[in-house]
Amino acid sequence: MEYRKIKDQDKDEDSVVDDVESLRGKPLSTAVIDTAVSLGGGPIDRTKWKRKSMVTLALTVLTSSQAILIVWSKRAGRYEYSVTTANFLVESLKCAFSLVALGRIWNNEGVTEDNRLSTTVEEVIVYPIPAALYLVKNLLQYYIFAYVDAPGYQILKNLNIISTGVLYRIILKKKLSQIQWAAFILLCAGCTTAQLNSNSDHVLQTPLQGWMMAIVMALLSGFAGVYTEAIIKKRPSRNINVQNFWLYIFGMIFNAAAILVQDFDAVMNKGFFHGYSFITVLMILNHAMSGIAVSMVMKYADNIVKVYSTSVAMLLTAIVSVFLFGFHLSLAFFLGSTVVSVSIYLHSIGKLQR
Amino acid sequence: MEYRKIKDQDKDEDSVVDDVESLRGKPLSTAVIDTAVSLGGGPIDRTKWKRKSMVTLALTVLTSSQAILIVWSKRAGRYEYSVTTANFLVESLKCAFSLVALGRIWNNEGVTEDNRLSTTVEEVIVYPIPAALYLVKNLLQYYIFAYVDAPGYQILKNLNIISTGVLYRIILKKKLSQIQWAAFILLCAGCTTAQLNSNSDHVLQTPLQGWMMAIVMALLSGFAGVYTEAIIKKRPSRNINVQNFWLYIFGMIFNAAAILVQDFDAVMNKGFFHGYSFITVLMILNHAMSGIAVSMVMKYADNIVKVYSTSVAMLLTAIVSVFLFGFHLSLAFFLGSTVVSVSIYLHSIGKLQR
Repeated sequence: MEYRKIKDQDKDEDSVVDDVESLRGKPLSTAVIDTAVSLGGGPIDRTKWKRKSMVTLALTVLTSSQAILIVWSKRAGRYEYSVTTANFLVESLKCAFSLVALGRIWNNEGVTEDNRLSTTVEEVIVYPIPAALYLVKNLLQYYIFAYVDAPGYQILKNLNIISTGVLYRIILKKKLSQIQWAAFILLCAGCTTAQLNSNSDHVLQTPLQGWMMAIVMALLSGFAGVYTEAIIKKRPSRNINVQNFWLYIFGMIFNAAAILVQDFDAVMNKGFFHGYSFITVLMILNHAMSGIAVSMVMKYADNIVKVYSTSVAMLLTAIVSVFLFGFHLSLAFFLGSTVVSVSIYLHSIGKLQR
Repeated sequence: MEYRKIKDQDKDEDSVVDDVESLRGKPLSTAVIDTAVSLGGGPIDRTKWKRKSMVTLALTVLTSSQAILIVWSKRAGRYEYSVTTANFLVESLKCAFSLVALGRIWNNEGVTEDNRLSTTVEEVIVYPIPAALYLVKNLLQYYIFAYVDAPGYQILKNLNIISTGVLYRIILKKKLSQIQWAAFILLCAGCTTAQLNSNSDHVLQTPLQGWMMAIVMALLSGFAGVYTEAIIKKRPSRNINVQNFWLYIFGMIFNAAAILVQDFDAVMNKGFFHGYSFITVLMILNHAMSGIAVSMVMKYADNIVKVYSTSVAMLLTAIVSVFLFGFHLSLAFFLGSTVVSVSIYLHSIGKLQR
């Protein structure tokens, strides 16, 4: 159960946009009027800033509602559907969204060099890499549970924050200021603190193999994220919907393979949609939309913003769960949230002084 | 037991120096040679920086060994001695140290306007205020335990960090940079995180009266600290030993009154030194020396440095206790220590950019 939750969350880390177009089509004047908050620069800077804020907000809200859907579905009972078919549907839905968005763009702007679907081998050859990395990571997930329990793994997953920062620096060669590094360490410590409970100390008893695997998995996950950003940003003028279409095509292929390997018998005997409920459909829709949001964040912002966004989503989920499910917030949660808030503040301060 | 520990720790927050003289007498050349670390400025700046570092280090080591002595004495059994007599002895010892230091200075430099012991009413009238504030705070301590238990009170005491920062800004009119404020909030969150245990969530159930009293006590403690700094810094050229002599004379008077009110019968029947052991003597010596260190930090550094120093001491105590008493460090402790370390780093960065 816990494992599926984890798998569900990882799946959409490589991700398309159907309303990029609506953002592109937005008249500059509107953007200028209501972005007094913007940090100077011309109207184009402000539109960029607004777009970045919107995709970040969308990712935060979608990720946090995703976690709430998971809690809701747990309350409703065990998952009865096959996870591989759901994953395949998420990838297909994202592909479909990309095509719909492209269709509308072709209608308005015509087919150009930047938005044509056809591509070269040289462009497309790197696209399966993130999907392959996630596959390796998901395979490792089966083995790490021999060393760590599921709540312990949730704690160790915060290593992703550090690995993303380090790989972002090394691979994308983008600098973070000293203050931003400090903020990043705080983000990791704050998220972990917010998740502490009376059993968390067990994590310290994790054997060396468990630590090694956790670190390798954090590196794989960080590498996949940073690599996706590198692919998308390599051709800045290329339409994001085309880039996503190709990313998700490989996602579909990998997930189709997973159905064949893992759930072929179940699908054959019980049917593809066996065990699907209203909440399953909601979760698939939500995953597809968060996948699209992740992609937009990669194109218009970066992996650092993505990490902050998903961390804030984690805190939001806990707060919303208080009202929805009567959860109690711990002192550790308040302390962790304080540290995460200061981290966000420092990250923005650090940027100005860079 | 727990209460006495708290009382013991508070007692020496108003504090004299017997070896200021030895620092003063240090030839500039030595200071210049081994302070390549110094942040520029002339030899005098470097001596100042070195003196500041030394007093801070002394305070940290003394405060942390103080906490270790408390754990040790707890292991050895209940305190059998009267706390008021011990407090009186600490104040007397600090007075004696001040006088000895002054005697040596008079021998070397002769009696000057700055180091003469006689004083004006105008200078001395403010000296009883910190001692009086601590008295009020100690009285309140009896009542707060109706609302919070001892470990909960230890957690709430971290509010002192915030109150010290706020009062430092308001009363001493010294500015902290934005980054230093962020660092201060982190220090408070980090110290609290490091102290978390499975029962800490009880603190959240503290009734409103408990919170109000904790806040009032934090303000009293912060005010006493900041006020002591104001008194000492008001006359920068005045010898610290004279200033401390007058501070501690009032400490002696207040503690003599406390013996009469609280422990008169016990002292009369069992004797002044009843129940004293080797460890009691060590604790009294340690308290006197930490008191002197606090005073030196107030003179040569400030309340902010004092707060950082005692926070680091708290972490050091826990680490040393692992080796001495076989304590286990929790995940919360590691996370809290990380946050405190980043806070210290940010505080120093913030200073440079101010």
